Amino acid sequence: MTGPSTPPQAYGVHSEVGRLHKVLVCAPGLAHRRLTPTNSDDLLFDDVMWVENAQRDHADFVNKLRQRGVEVVELHELLAQTMAIGEARSWLLDRKIVPNQVGVGLIEDTRAFLETLEPRQLAEYLIGGLATTDLPDEFRSGYVSLARESTGVREYLMPPLPNTLYTRDTTCWLYGGLTLNPLYWPARHDETLLMKAVYQFHPDFVGSRVWWGDPENDWGQATFEGGDIMPVGNGVVLMGMSERTSRQAVTQVAKALFENGAAEHVIVAGMPKLRAAMHLDTVFTFADRDIVTLYPKIMDSVHTFSLRPSDKAPGLDITDEGSTPFVDVVAGGLGLPRLQVIETGGDVYASERQQWDSGNNAVALEPGVVFTYDRNTQTNTLLRKAGVEVITIVGAELGRGRGGGHCMTCPIIREPVAF
Amino acid sequence: MTGPSTPPQAYGVHSEVGRLHKVLVCAPGLAHRRLTPTNSDDLLFDDVMWVENAQRDHADFVNKLRQRGVEVVELHELLAQTMAIGEARSWLLDRKIVPNQVGVGLIEDTRAFLETLEPRQLAEYLIGGLATTDLPDEFRSGYVSLARESTGVREYLMPPLPNTLYTRDTTCWLYGGLTLNPLYWPARHDETLLMKAVYQFHPDFVGSRVWWGDPENDWGQATFEGGDIMPVGNGVVLMGMSERTSRQAVTQVAKALFENGAAEHVIVAGMPKLRAAMHLDTVFTFADRDIVTLYPKIMDSVHTFSLRPSDKAPGLDITDEGSTPFVDVVAGGLGLPRLQVIETGGDVYASERQQWDSGNNAVALEPGVVFTYDRNTQTNTLLRKAGVEVITIVGAELGRGRGGGHCMTCPIIREPVAF
Amino acid sequence: MTGPSTPPQAYGVHSEVGRLHKVLVCAPGLAHRRLTPTNSDDLLFDDVMWVENAQRDHADFVNKLRQRGVEVVELHELLAQTMAIGEARSWLLDRKIVPNQVGVGLIEDTRAFLETLEPRQLAEYLIGGLATTDLPDEFRSGYVSLARESTGVREYLMPPLPNTLYTRDTTCWLYGGLTLNPLYWPARHDETLLMKAVYQFHPDFVGSRVWWGDPENDWGQATFEGGDIMPVGNGVVLMGMSERTSRQAVTQVAKALFENGAAEHVIVAGMPKLRAAMHLDTVFTFADRDIVTLYPKIMDSVHTFSLRPSDKAPGLDITDEGSTPFVDVVAGGLGLPRLQVIETGGDVYASERQQWDSGNNAVALEPGVVFTYDRNTQTNTLLRKAGVEVITIVGAELGRGRGGGHCMTCPIIREPVAF
Amino acid sequence: MTGPSTPPQAYGVHSEVGRLHKVLVCAPGLAHRRLTPTNSDDLLFDDVMWVENAQRDHADFVNKLRQRGVEVVELHELLAQTMAIGEARSWLLDRKIVPNQVGVGLIEDTRAFLETLEPRQLAEYLIGGLATTDLPDEFRSGYVSLARESTGVREYLMPPLPNTLYTRDTTCWLYGGLTLNPLYWPARHDETLLMKAVYQFHPDFVGSRVWWGDPENDWGQATFEGGDIMPVGNGVVLMGMSERTSRQAVTQVAKALFENGAAEHVIVAGMPKLRAAMHLDTVFTFADRDIVTLYPKIMDSVHTFSLRPSDKAPGLDITDEGSTPFVDVVAGGLGLPRLQVIETGGDVYASERQQWDSGNNAVALEPGVVFTYDRNTQTNTLLRKAGVEVITIVGAELGRGRGGGHCMTCPIIREPVAF
Repeated sequence: MTGPSTPPQAYGVHSEVGRLHKVLVCAPGLAHRRLTPTNSDDLLFDDVMWVENAQRDHADFVNKLRQRGVEVVELHELLAQTMAIGEARSWLLDRKIVPNQVGVGLIEDTRAFLETLEPRQLAEYLIGGLATTDLPDEFRSGYVSLARESTGVREYLMPPLPNTLYTRDTTCWLYGGLTLNPLYWPARHDETLLMKAVYQFHPDFVGSRVWWGDPENDWGQATFEGGDIMPVGNGVVLMGMSERTSRQAVTQVAKALFENGAAEHVIVAGMPKLRAAMHLDTVFTFADRDIVTLYPKIMDSVHTFSLRPSDKAPGLDITDEGSTPFVDVVAGGLGLPRLQVIETGGDVYASERQQWDSGNNAVALEPGVVFTYDRNTQTNTLLRKAGVEVITIVGAELGRGRGGGHCMTCPIIREPVAF
Repeated sequence: MTGPSTPPQAYGVHSEVGRLHKVLVCAPGLAHRRLTPTNSDDLLFDDVMWVENAQRDHADFVNKLRQRGVEVVELHELLAQTMAIGEARSWLLDRKIVPNQVGVGLIEDTRAFLETLEPRQLAEYLIGGLATTDLPDEFRSGYVSLARESTGVREYLMPPLPNTLYTRDTTCWLYGGLTLNPLYWPARHDETLLMKAVYQFHPDFVGSRVWWGDPENDWGQATFEGGDIMPVGNGVVLMGMSERTSRQAVTQVAKALFENGAAEHVIVAGMPKLRAAMHLDTVFTFADRDIVTLYPKIMDSVHTFSLRPSDKAPGLDITDEGSTPFVDVVAGGLGLPRLQVIETGGDVYASERQQWDSGNNAVALEPGVVFTYDRNTQTNTLLRKAGVEVITIVGAELGRGRGGGHCMTCPIIREPVAF
Repeated sequence: MTGPSTPPQAYGVHSEVGRLHKVLVCAPGLAHRRLTPTNSDDLLFDDVMWVENAQRDHADFVNKLRQRGVEVVELHELLAQTMAIGEARSWLLDRKIVPNQVGVGLIEDTRAFLETLEPRQLAEYLIGGLATTDLPDEFRSGYVSLARESTGVREYLMPPLPNTLYTRDTTCWLYGGLTLNPLYWPARHDETLLMKAVYQFHPDFVGSRVWWGDPENDWGQATFEGGDIMPVGNGVVLMGMSERTSRQAVTQVAKALFENGAAEHVIVAGMPKLRAAMHLDTVFTFADRDIVTLYPKIMDSVHTFSLRPSDKAPGLDITDEGSTPFVDVVAGGLGLPRLQVIETGGDVYASERQQWDSGNNAVALEPGVVFTYDRNTQTNTLLRKAGVEVITIVGAELGRGRGGGHCMTCPIIREPVAF
Repeated sequence: MTGPSTPPQAYGVHSEVGRLHKVLVCAPGLAHRRLTPTNSDDLLFDDVMWVENAQRDHADFVNKLRQRGVEVVELHELLAQTMAIGEARSWLLDRKIVPNQVGVGLIEDTRAFLETLEPRQLAEYLIGGLATTDLPDEFRSGYVSLARESTGVREYLMPPLPNTLYTRDTTCWLYGGLTLNPLYWPARHDETLLMKAVYQFHPDFVGSRVWWGDPENDWGQATFEGGDIMPVGNGVVLMGMSERTSRQAVTQVAKALFENGAAEHVIVAGMPKLRAAMHLDTVFTFADRDIVTLYPKIMDSVHTFSLRPSDKAPGLDITDEGSTPFVDVVAGGLGLPRLQVIETGGDVYASERQQWDSGNNAVALEPGVVFTYDRNTQTNTLLRKAGVEVITIVGAELGRGRGGGHCMTCPIIREPVAF
């Protein structure tokens, strides 16, 4: 990977639209080659994709980011670099190759096979999954047939993690520190474990400050996904409270941020109970300092709350914002008179289609410059008419997992903006 | 609760059909009153039920067991007795009323309210769930409205546990010790925590030997449900390897049993990947020493494996039984020449209907005497023609969660049978 | 069948709650024995039922109606009596045993077999369906194996019609004439054909006046189901415009009624697009002259229109009732100051459960006397507190197809009430 | 439309791989712009597509066909040319703008509006659907609001027909004549009505011989879709008997072909009951005179029958081919020793993915030259290694309705091949 690394002490995301300097992505790969119409539900992916073309389109996205001066780090590469460190490899395999994941009888062979691999190949299997058919003959015992009779993810020795494509969800940099998120679906749990290995052992990441979360603990109903979380600046963090991000987590993270002085105001968007409203960033993102794009059909029924620090236990103060629209609460939090709203474009059919195709899932390079999918031409046109520079990514394949540019990026260094 | 207790040292289940002396059940209640067409999927129940009639039919089942001399203990009562012990109450509430489950901001009020309750009332909420609407005014803070905006089980302060009705799944007595099972669905996880409280603090249960499992640990993909497990005698345990019971758990439990000398042979039934084949006991149970009832459409495609102790690591020896029918492997394990098979009765329509209505889910009182639902008249007739005494339970309401007599009972003391 | 028949000239339904004199029902039978978890979706039934008990509970319902002086006619019996008439048998078999339904190659044998049957047996197959396995050996050709390879209803020589249980849907007496309804699902189409045979040939029904509908025509999107239709009296007819009853049909029937002077005002309830709101009578029925029971969560979002006769083409005048509540428009139509509303009883859980269990699906014997399922105890109590006499039917089995007393009855003679 | 027309007397399809001379396609358009995540199930489409890109890719496909000398006719154009004929316009609108489709009260206005349109614009609405919002103010009465309250396709004045993209299904040229197919889903019924208008009035099509089918009749369970039908030559027709193509239709069409001397042998493929096996051509197509590509996981469980003419009633002779593989029966029918089989390429994941992405849905230009989607690179490679020339079409958007090149083409003139 390219470019000089910044020390982790300088890491931090201070806004949604300030200049982006460093970002984490994850290219499509083996995990997506394993997706079929039969298993895609279990693996939490909406459709199968043409992996080679998805890789081409993802590489183009990375290239455009780099040409604009962003340092892009990619998960397979980071993980390979991490796995080249003996201690890190042991730490991770000690946690992955255990009876609860691999089953008694297959641990020794599986570990032995993995120990033969080059770091890059090991990273490939860690993300792409290890099927029983991947084990060479010299590592196959009678237990392999037991595994093959199992259903779904249980048949794997390490399950595929296709949602690593959406690096946004797994970790969040919120101002000067990060969260290691407990994801909603058990099938995604190990994504965070991989990230912990990176943050604990990769020299570019050791020493990063963690506000909350640890994949080695059980978080119960406190689940938290980065697609719902936005450090918008001015000490404010937006948190969508959705199917995937629970109040149990939202309140804990708010408390941790306040205790560390990392934020002063958490604005909670109580999302309606709809499939299309999976994450806040599927219906609402920032395009400029004071411009947002949103899908009104869903955002109109958001119920907003504010959390602020308090001297009294439990250290939080809660305000029910009642009938005040979410965007107005956000504008207030940022000290802006109002936000300019760009709604999903087109008629009733077109706007529903474009929201579905991640039309509101913009990610900013800097104020007024965003990346979006090419296919949402009407919303892109409205953004451009509002003066926003829109750089397009090909979404034909990448979009099939129902995520766009915002979902596919985890900013690591982003400047603040002035309000 | 009736009758004198036996000391836990004498507890143990030594067969599927030997004389039943002590059994755990759980009556329908508050948790089922909370089931609606909208939430039943989340709560893992197929349909809503008429709770009062389900209670009547369950009481009749319990009464018939007691009249035949079985000591029946009921979970609400056991839990109430346990909650009357200060240490036990603290232990359980310390684990239930935590930020990960209740959310920051509601812990103090929720705990304070629960501390005001009588043990029986507390047990009712522990099993039936605590909704935000259950909190009296003096215990309501602003955080209650945040909870009310949440979706599904997250809106509860303690989620309802309607599947406690099926005590079979949560713990298994396998010969002289038990397992505390990690259940497949996260929504059922706390069922096992309640059982741990009982086994740890209730005077009738303290000192029970635990082979495997602890709800305070994270078991990953090692999930294990009692509906798949049968200690059939002669040192043999049957284990259905299904959607819900994984090879990761099956191999661990086999190893634990072998190491403790509790069993010598685990026969694994690799179940086909079908909804109707949820647990082994939905398609296969024992009615007598050498009589089983089974649903051939599913059992015919079971792939069988045998696990036996080994001196070599990992302490297990595996045999792929290939094309040998499951029932023949079981007969062999028991030292019987063959098993007499009673198939689900009636034509192609009737047999599929009766399997669905738990027609093969018999539970034995003693050799040749079983309880089944009244509605599966054709299978019941076939059992009777084979000389089995069939005592019927009304299944109109109890059966709506797709479980029968075997699912609703967790034997604690059952005699061995001679083969 | 009991009692002296009334001449069809006297047939007519002049209200929803006036004294009921004659009613059509259909007992559970062979069609329900064919329901399985696998085919129930295709056959449009929510769950399998215990047929013998459903028959017992249905017989009890019929008995209670007869004891209260209602003449009850049953579809199997009516159809058997009709099939005893040579001309009628030929007419119906000429329409059922055709290449489009049976397939080339099986017509002669199937017809020949059916011609050997007694009328009652023939009626049983006409309603219950004729499977390839029902054909005796002497009527089996090579084409039987072709049929057996087919999927779903195509494998039948005559498909089962389990929804005949809900006689409400198929035909509607609206004041002095009836409609022969084109039902929404193709799988229910032949229910209306059976009814046409009865009305055309059975001596008790010949000469009945038909306002609209003929199962021998293709009605396209003009589908119409009796569960949505209520001739409430005072020249008013309520019509739920739902998934199953379309505006294309509603406007045609309104026009036909107006042209025949049979009604003066059709009140259209535009139902929200929800599964639970299948028919108007699943969320709204009359219990007395001025008392209705309804499920507010759905009825609150009904949008109401009025259709009245007009001199101008197309002979209809339409009024959008805007924000006026449906019940107020109905009260106005009946010349009442207001309707007393009994909402589905209990808390948020109980009311949703009871609506699902047909709690609002009451059918009146006379003003202030209704039949409902026993299981909806809270709604039944509220009706009783309002002075309504509630006679209960056992719903454990009958309710599994998601229909109650209103759905299971097709009134043929019902008196008007004064407003 | 390009090129000189051939007289319909010369129309005919005499093989699956002989030189293609004339073909019917239908470009994506308005109907696909109306697809949303909410309505796509009702409109029978798997996913929404980027219409502009789908049009680009479809135009490229057409261009490639034309460059290879095929006369391509497009449905919007054919229909526009047909609608320019007064009699044809009246005939079609008399059948579309009727109370059963449009509803009383909207007929006059809707017809009046449509009469104002240019033929091309009218064709656009006939295929793309007419929403209430499309009616200009001067054509809007109070009934428009009634329509807007309706659900699904009922809210349209003419429903969208997005599956016209798959011209293969609606009509089939089988040797020298065609069938006008009754399609399985009612929502697709009007596709065939449009085709009847073309065949009845368009000068290039008048006089075509029709073997069977008429969209003005009700065909009951006799449904027939071209994706299941292949006139492979040598007097043989293959017919998949699937969810969509029933034995009731298969036997009728076979009889009609035999009576007209159009074919001598119909080979019926009894398809397994799986979603992925929607049509025969989704799992089996020809690539050359004696080369087929197929998906073994499904084709291995096909049960094959042969139908041949007979002197005895019903004019058909049936042979159950028992355990003989389908491809061997087909080879025998063609007088070939065997067929060379190219299976879907890649490992267990890749082959399932490619079948899903229409990897086996090839359409031949001439023997050994086929069109397929670009994304199925492994199957395409295997075809090429077998000497087949593979011309690729971009499938990223066109494939989202789950159909490939074979589905999107209805051959009108195709030469025989010698066997």
